[in-house]
Amino acid sequence: MPVISNRGQILPPSPIRKLVPFADAAKRKGRKVYHLNIGQPDIATPPNALRAVRESDFKVLAYAPSAGTNEYRTKLANYYTQKVGTTLSPDDFIATTGASEALNFAMIACMNPGDELIVPEPFYANYNGFSISGGVKVKPITAHIDNGFALPPIQDFEKSITAKTKGILICNPSNPTGYLYSKEELLQLRDIVLKHDLFLFVDEVYRDFVYDDKQFHTVLNIDALEQHAIVFDSISKRYSSCGGRIGALVSRNKDVTATVMKLAQARLSPPTFGLIVAEATLDAPDNYVSDAIAEYDRRRQLLVKRLNAMNGVIAPTPGGAFYAFVQLPIDDSEKFCQWLLEEFEHNNATVMMAPGSGFYSTPGLGKKEVRIAYVLNENDLNNAMDCLEKALQTYNNVLIPIIRTEIPEI
Amino acid sequence: MPVISNRGQILPPSPIRKLVPFADAAKRKGRKVYHLNIGQPDIATPPNALRAVRESDFKVLAYAPSAGTNEYRTKLANYYTQKVGTTLSPDDFIATTGASEALNFAMIACMNPGDELIVPEPFYANYNGFSISGGVKVKPITAHIDNGFALPPIQDFEKSITAKTKGILICNPSNPTGYLYSKEELLQLRDIVLKHDLFLFVDEVYRDFVYDDKQFHTVLNIDALEQHAIVFDSISKRYSSCGGRIGALVSRNKDVTATVMKLAQARLSPPTFGLIVAEATLDAPDNYVSDAIAEYDRRRQLLVKRLNAMNGVIAPTPGGAFYAFVQLPIDDSEKFCQWLLEEFEHNNATVMMAPGSGFYSTPGLGKKEVRIAYVLNENDLNNAMDCLEKALQTYNNVLIPIIRTEIPEI
Repeated sequence: MPVISNRGQILPPSPIRKLVPFADAAKRKGRKVYHLNIGQPDIATPPNALRAVRESDFKVLAYAPSAGTNEYRTKLANYYTQKVGTTLSPDDFIATTGASEALNFAMIACMNPGDELIVPEPFYANYNGFSISGGVKVKPITAHIDNGFALPPIQDFEKSITAKTKGILICNPSNPTGYLYSKEELLQLRDIVLKHDLFLFVDEVYRDFVYDDKQFHTVLNIDALEQHAIVFDSISKRYSSCGGRIGALVSRNKDVTATVMKLAQARLSPPTFGLIVAEATLDAPDNYVSDAIAEYDRRRQLLVKRLNAMNGVIAPTPGGAFYAFVQLPIDDSEKFCQWLLEEFEHNNATVMMAPGSGFYSTPGLGKKEVRIAYVLNENDLNNAMDCLEKALQTYNNVLIPIIRTEIPEI
Repeated sequence: MPVISNRGQILPPSPIRKLVPFADAAKRKGRKVYHLNIGQPDIATPPNALRAVRESDFKVLAYAPSAGTNEYRTKLANYYTQKVGTTLSPDDFIATTGASEALNFAMIACMNPGDELIVPEPFYANYNGFSISGGVKVKPITAHIDNGFALPPIQDFEKSITAKTKGILICNPSNPTGYLYSKEELLQLRDIVLKHDLFLFVDEVYRDFVYDDKQFHTVLNIDALEQHAIVFDSISKRYSSCGGRIGALVSRNKDVTATVMKLAQARLSPPTFGLIVAEATLDAPDNYVSDAIAEYDRRRQLLVKRLNAMNGVIAPTPGGAFYAFVQLPIDDSEKFCQWLLEEFEHNNATVMMAPGSGFYSTPGLGKKEVRIAYVLNENDLNNAMDCLEKALQTYNNVLIPIIRTEIPEI
C-alpha cells in the first residue's frame, strides 16, 4: 500500500475544526453547543448581496475570469480608494477563493521550498497548513499575553533572519489575538523588510473591526513598501460572507501579481456566485459595516468583562478583529476543550473553543490558552460564559482525582 | 526589491487562457471570437440546480463543512452506486473547490517535494501548474496521434520508474485528447502500480461523455486497487456547472482521505452556493446527461468530419470527453493561435484554440497541434471550422513571404 507524504503526515489538524466530531456527538445527545471556536459571524449577510445571487438569471453557471471580473476589480479598487484610503489599479487585485487561497498563492509565488517565513505567534493556525503545503518553514517569534500580544521586540525578528528568510507575515488586526498593530510597529517592520529585502505579507481581513477609537493602518499606505507589501483580503468577515469564498491578493508588485495570475489560471476561476455576492457587497449601505462593528464591540466588552471576572482567567482587551486569546486556569486546553464537549453540560449546553497550542509553532506553548471568537449575540455569549465559568470550576475539581489515580502507588 | 520564487518563475502560463488578452482585443475590434480554447460548455445548467440557489432563503452565507455537507456526500455515494456502479461510503468523498483543488490536495498528501509522477502526454496542461506548486516532478510518457493517443506501451512506464516515483496520473477519458482508456489498459496500469506500490490517480471528470457505444471503466472498480486508486471528479462538465467550483476527491484509502481532510480544513470550506448547486444536480432528470451526450456526439462527428476534410489536418476521432487534439499543417501553433486572434478574420469572426505545446512536458512536442473543445452548437462550430479552414489557407500563404523576408540576402 502506497504511503502518504511526509508533509501530509506532519500537517497539523485545524485546532478550529478538529473537535467538530465531538461537537457533533454532543449535539446528537441533544446538547446545545455554543460555537466560539470558529470565526463564523452570525450577522446577516448584506441582503442586497444575497439578492444579487437570487435574482441572477443566467442559464449556464460558467467559469468566471481567473482574477475575477474586471467590473469587480474596478469596483474593488474604487472601494480601496474611498474606504481604505489607498490608490490602486484594478490589476493590483486578484480575486481568490477565500483569503486562504491568496495565502497559498503568495507562498508558492514568493518563496521556494526551504525558505523561511517569520511569523509572530500565536498566529492563525492555518498558516501552518499553508506553509507545510508550500514547503515553507515558519520561524515563530513569540508574542506575550502580558502586553496583549503586541509586536515582539524587533531585535527578536532581526536575530531570526537568515539567508533563507524571504518574508514576514502578520495578521492585522490579529486573528487569533485581536491585537491591532500600531503605525510605529508597522514602521519597525518596514525598516527591517527594507534592510533585508523581504516581503511583508499582511493578512488584513479584519481591517474594519477596530474598537475604542483606535486607528487601523494598512501596510499598503506605508511608504517605500510598494514592492514588498502583499495584502490578503476577504469578504468573509467584513460582509459576513464566509461561504462565498471570495478573497483577494493585493499588491503593487507586478512580478508577484503576474506569477499569482499563472496560479490563478491553473485553478481556472474563483466561484461565480461568490463573485456576484462580492461585487454586490460593495454596494451595501454604509451603515452595514458600522452596525456590525458596533455589535461586535458590545460583545467584546461583555466577553472581556465576563472572562476577567472568572477566577484565574487572563483576558487582554482586544483592539480589533473578533477574537480574544485567553489564558485559563487549566492544565491543557486541548483536553479541556474536548472535555467540554464530551463530558460537560450546564443547562444542557456547552461551549466549543479552539485550543491555544494549535496557534503556536513553538512546541509546548499555548497549553493554558484558548481562542474565543465572539460571533454570538450577547444573550448567547452570556450563556456561553455561564457555561465556561461553571466548567472551569467543575473541571479543576474532577481533574484532581483523575490525575491522582494516574500516580502509581509507591 | 524581493524577487519571486524559482517555482513561480518556471510556472508555465495556461495554454488555455494565456491568449485571452488577444481575444479581448479582437472583441474590442468588434470581431466575433469562437471559443474552442476552453472546456466551458454552452449547455444549460440543470434548471433545478440554479433554482435551488435562487430559492435559498438563509440570511447568513456561512461556511460549509470542510468536506462538504453530509447530505451531499451521502447523495454522492448513492449516485456512485447507481450511476457509476461502484459502492463507496460518504466518507470516501471530500468535496473540493473544483477538481483542480482535489488534484492539488492529492499532490500534497501523497507526494513529497522531488517525488516523481508519471503522466502520459499530451496531458491537461494545468497538471504542470499543480505539480510545480507541489514540488512534484512530472515524468512524461509520450502518446502518439497515430493511434489516437492510446496508452503508450507499458514498458515505457516501467522504464521511467525510479525510487522517486510515487504515482501515475491519467485523465480518462482524456482531456486534451478525447482518448477513452480500455479495461485492458487500466489492467496494465493496475499491474504496474501494484508491482511498484504506486498511487494511480485518475481524473474522471469527463466520465459520462463516451461515444460510439464504447464503455467507460472507472478505476474504482478495478480489483486490488482499493488503496492505490484516487479519483478526481467534478460537477463542472457533467452538469455544465464550471462556475460552481465543486469537485471531489474520491478514495477508499483512509490515510489519504484523512490527510486530505487536514488540507480541506485549512482552507475552511468549498463554496456554499456551489454545494447547493452540486447537491441539486444529483436530482436533475435522467435525460439531462444523456441529452448532453447526444448533443456533444453530434458536434464531435461534425468537428472530426470538417477537420479531416481540411488539407493536411490530422484529427483522430475522440472516444470520449469533448476535446479533439489535432495536428495542423502549420509551423507553430502558438504563433498560429495568436495570429488568428490578432490578424485574421473571416466574416468578421475568428477562432480561439489552445496551442498544443502547453499540453506536453517534453520540450518541442506539440508545435503543430492544437486542442479544440467542441463546446459550441453545431451552427457556431461550422462557422468556426469555416474560419479555421480559411485561416489555414491564408496563414501558410502569408507565412511564406514573412519567413522569406527573414532569410538574409546571400
